[in-house]
Amino acid sequence: MAENFDLIVIGAGPGGYVAAIRAAQLGMKTAVVEREHLGGICLNWGCIPTKALLRSAEIAHYIEHSQAYGIKVEGKVTLDVEAIVKRSRGVANQLSAGVKGLLKKNKVTVLDGSAKLLGQGKVAVTAKDGKVTDAAAKHIIIATGARARVLPGLEPDGKLVWTYKEAMVPTATPKSMLVIGTGAIGVEFACFYKAMGVDVTLVEVVDRILPVEDEEISAFAAKAFTKQGIKIKTGAKVVKLDRHADSVTAHIDVAGKVETVTVDRIISAVGIVANTEGLGLENTKVKLDRGHIVNDGYGRTDEPGVYAIGDVAGAPWLAHKASHEGIICVEKIAGLPHVHTMDKSNIPGCTYSFPQVASVGLTEAKAKAAGYEIKVGRFPFIGNGKAIALGEPEGLVKTVFDAKTGELLGAHMIGAEVTELIQGYTIGKTAELTEAEFMHTVFPHPTLSEMMHESVLAAYGRAIHY
Amino acid sequence: MAENFDLIVIGAGPGGYVAAIRAAQLGMKTAVVEREHLGGICLNWGCIPTKALLRSAEIAHYIEHSQAYGIKVEGKVTLDVEAIVKRSRGVANQLSAGVKGLLKKNKVTVLDGSAKLLGQGKVAVTAKDGKVTDAAAKHIIIATGARARVLPGLEPDGKLVWTYKEAMVPTATPKSMLVIGTGAIGVEFACFYKAMGVDVTLVEVVDRILPVEDEEISAFAAKAFTKQGIKIKTGAKVVKLDRHADSVTAHIDVAGKVETVTVDRIISAVGIVANTEGLGLENTKVKLDRGHIVNDGYGRTDEPGVYAIGDVAGAPWLAHKASHEGIICVEKIAGLPHVHTMDKSNIPGCTYSFPQVASVGLTEAKAKAAGYEIKVGRFPFIGNGKAIALGEPEGLVKTVFDAKTGELLGAHMIGAEVTELIQGYTIGKTAELTEAEFMHTVFPHPTLSEMMHESVLAAYGRAIHY
Repeated sequence: MAENFDLIVIGAGPGGYVAAIRAAQLGMKTAVVEREHLGGICLNWGCIPTKALLRSAEIAHYIEHSQAYGIKVEGKVTLDVEAIVKRSRGVANQLSAGVKGLLKKNKVTVLDGSAKLLGQGKVAVTAKDGKVTDAAAKHIIIATGARARVLPGLEPDGKLVWTYKEAMVPTATPKSMLVIGTGAIGVEFACFYKAMGVDVTLVEVVDRILPVEDEEISAFAAKAFTKQGIKIKTGAKVVKLDRHADSVTAHIDVAGKVETVTVDRIISAVGIVANTEGLGLENTKVKLDRGHIVNDGYGRTDEPGVYAIGDVAGAPWLAHKASHEGIICVEKIAGLPHVHTMDKSNIPGCTYSFPQVASVGLTEAKAKAAGYEIKVGRFPFIGNGKAIALGEPEGLVKTVFDAKTGELLGAHMIGAEVTELIQGYTIGKTAELTEAEFMHTVFPHPTLSEMMHESVLAAYGRAIHY
Repeated sequence: MAENFDLIVIGAGPGGYVAAIRAAQLGMKTAVVEREHLGGICLNWGCIPTKALLRSAEIAHYIEHSQAYGIKVEGKVTLDVEAIVKRSRGVANQLSAGVKGLLKKNKVTVLDGSAKLLGQGKVAVTAKDGKVTDAAAKHIIIATGARARVLPGLEPDGKLVWTYKEAMVPTATPKSMLVIGTGAIGVEFACFYKAMGVDVTLVEVVDRILPVEDEEISAFAAKAFTKQGIKIKTGAKVVKLDRHADSVTAHIDVAGKVETVTVDRIISAVGIVANTEGLGLENTKVKLDRGHIVNDGYGRTDEPGVYAIGDVAGAPWLAHKASHEGIICVEKIAGLPHVHTMDKSNIPGCTYSFPQVASVGLTEAKAKAAGYEIKVGRFPFIGNGKAIALGEPEGLVKTVFDAKTGELLGAHMIGAEVTELIQGYTIGKTAELTEAEFMHTVFPHPTLSEMMHESVLAAYGRAIHY
């Protein structure tokens, strides 16, 4: 006998488990199916454990520069890669256990295994031992996420060519490394390994790193990374790998000329592919578009009662986008009033490189391309008292406004703590505030956040400290 | 011949120099009179150099706990108080030079000396060498700030009993210290000196530390400080000091019983007194109320053409309040349209203790006392992934909403980086956003700022991660 639920969520990542908890809050009898880890990739092999690794690198950086802060460290400083990885795994495990506790507290049933849609609300869950459990629900949310994209010839092998997964649990520190791809994942690993003493080269196929960011931010980041000793090759395509016993030679096409670079390890960070296989979508009317499940903004697919949220439902591939989609989808199912689809231009993006990068909304180029007449404000960290006091004088806060209406179109930041600052612009942009409200806001002194005020003032020729 | 200006600003602190720059931007011929340091107390002896000291203490904390992050430090670690102070002074000097450059760039005349109003727009500026220069202006802004309050019997002597000024430039680290007063200045110094290895006792006359903060935040801070080894005496009044050669015995009345504590040094941080003396106010109709200059919210005093902003014009005694008052005052003088007075409930406050404290708006108790029916949300740092990854699991985000309208009445935070987070709530509160807009905002993952979202959700019984 199949157990009946109001809602079955397939996948317990930041989209799925949040959707399940929200559904339980709204009184639905809810199950979540997870084949591996509660919390998904984000929590177990993504956002969270990388932040733990980067925190260790940050602490190491402070120790290295302690003399500048008036502290003398005499003696040997060792970055213990085993201990650093152990801490990172501990953080992931602690949070995964936390998700388990939250699901239990909210009385969400957890079904261990892989789910397959059988049509008409039926789902078969196959556990690792092969045992199949049937379940059924009026509503089924697919939140199966995505996996690393594999390029032909650059196939990860777990030893020489890594994905994020092997990169997160090194057993020793390689001497040299090539990172292919300069999105958030690529540059975060580049910065981590550089801090661990590795000779790092970044390769990007387009003409600049962090290609989704504003061009000025990309340029600023490239300069900062180069200063740290990270080598950067843009407009460069890895066309072939020669795999040796304990090293790899990469053949890189740079503007038609092929260079070779031999490194100990390669990290492939060239994007993701949605997990749509084995789900039994062939038993449904669910449609795909370029590999992602098509939905109406409330998660609804072409198959009544089947929904998709998060990475499997398309860009941007961000945990917080997945969580919000989960909540919207569930509230719509529950028939709550005033449920809105998300305006994707209000979804911030963060990169935890050194320095950090954060942004929301349109870049300057995209705002122009969209036909806006714009006002652009810039404020550099060097003009901010707190940045100087912290010893963090490198960074930039850039804002783009619609010259006609004063609406904030985009905000782009690089520098210390910007991943924590971007929320202010995001709140304002979501509420459609104009330059006047940002100007009237009293930002506390001395904080980095004062630069958010100054950048707005600068867009209107009124900055005080620059 | 007195030189004529459109505007003379007396005092070049964060109120005065910002007002002068804004006036110059608006085309006024502007002078600023400063008797000591461009940038005022805030920049030279307050906010900025303390943040530099606290940054050194923070770095020292990371080194002390480096093993928890997987880093081994073998050998001796020395906190070099001379180098730490030198760095702090360097930061202050760099920023003071920056203010000089900004004033020059904006063509603001700097008059070195003390100003005295002579009536009818005339000002006499007496330099340190006694030379008097006359100047005149249609508008005069008094931005003379404040100084440390002195309690009878507890008079600072520069050696045993310090104000913030001596506390900022120690030549050696005392073994023990009593800090009188637990506002921002008192607790920041307590945390700094504790990090330097000093045995610190905090004394507060009312029943809790950080008395302007929400009671829960005070209690949280007290617990965290106690855990660090800081001793706290509340409801305690220092009634007498016995000053010895190199130590002081304080007689402290705790609930009617007098205890004695002998320490190397005392820091008196018992509030401030406005600088109104010697300004020639007797030559004007300017009125004082409890020591502060009375003004109408646009800085206008009872004497036409004379204005007051910043600490001298009353609470809250915060640099960012002074700067905004300066801008409002100048824009009103210039006749700009749509100039508004400040809503003081939208001015955030920050304390850079370990952990940090930040807040804006009404505390829970004050909201109740004001007659609001309220909804209160709480979210602890322990429930946040980034906090765990950073190794910063101690903290709380508390929000207070008007149950009837959904308006955010107050936000109260303690924990890592909250001084940088509070701006988001401040932007929202200034724009009179309700819980709905905060809920709709997509906060980036993984960040501490997600707790700001969860705290709002919690106020409405909808938190996901708690």
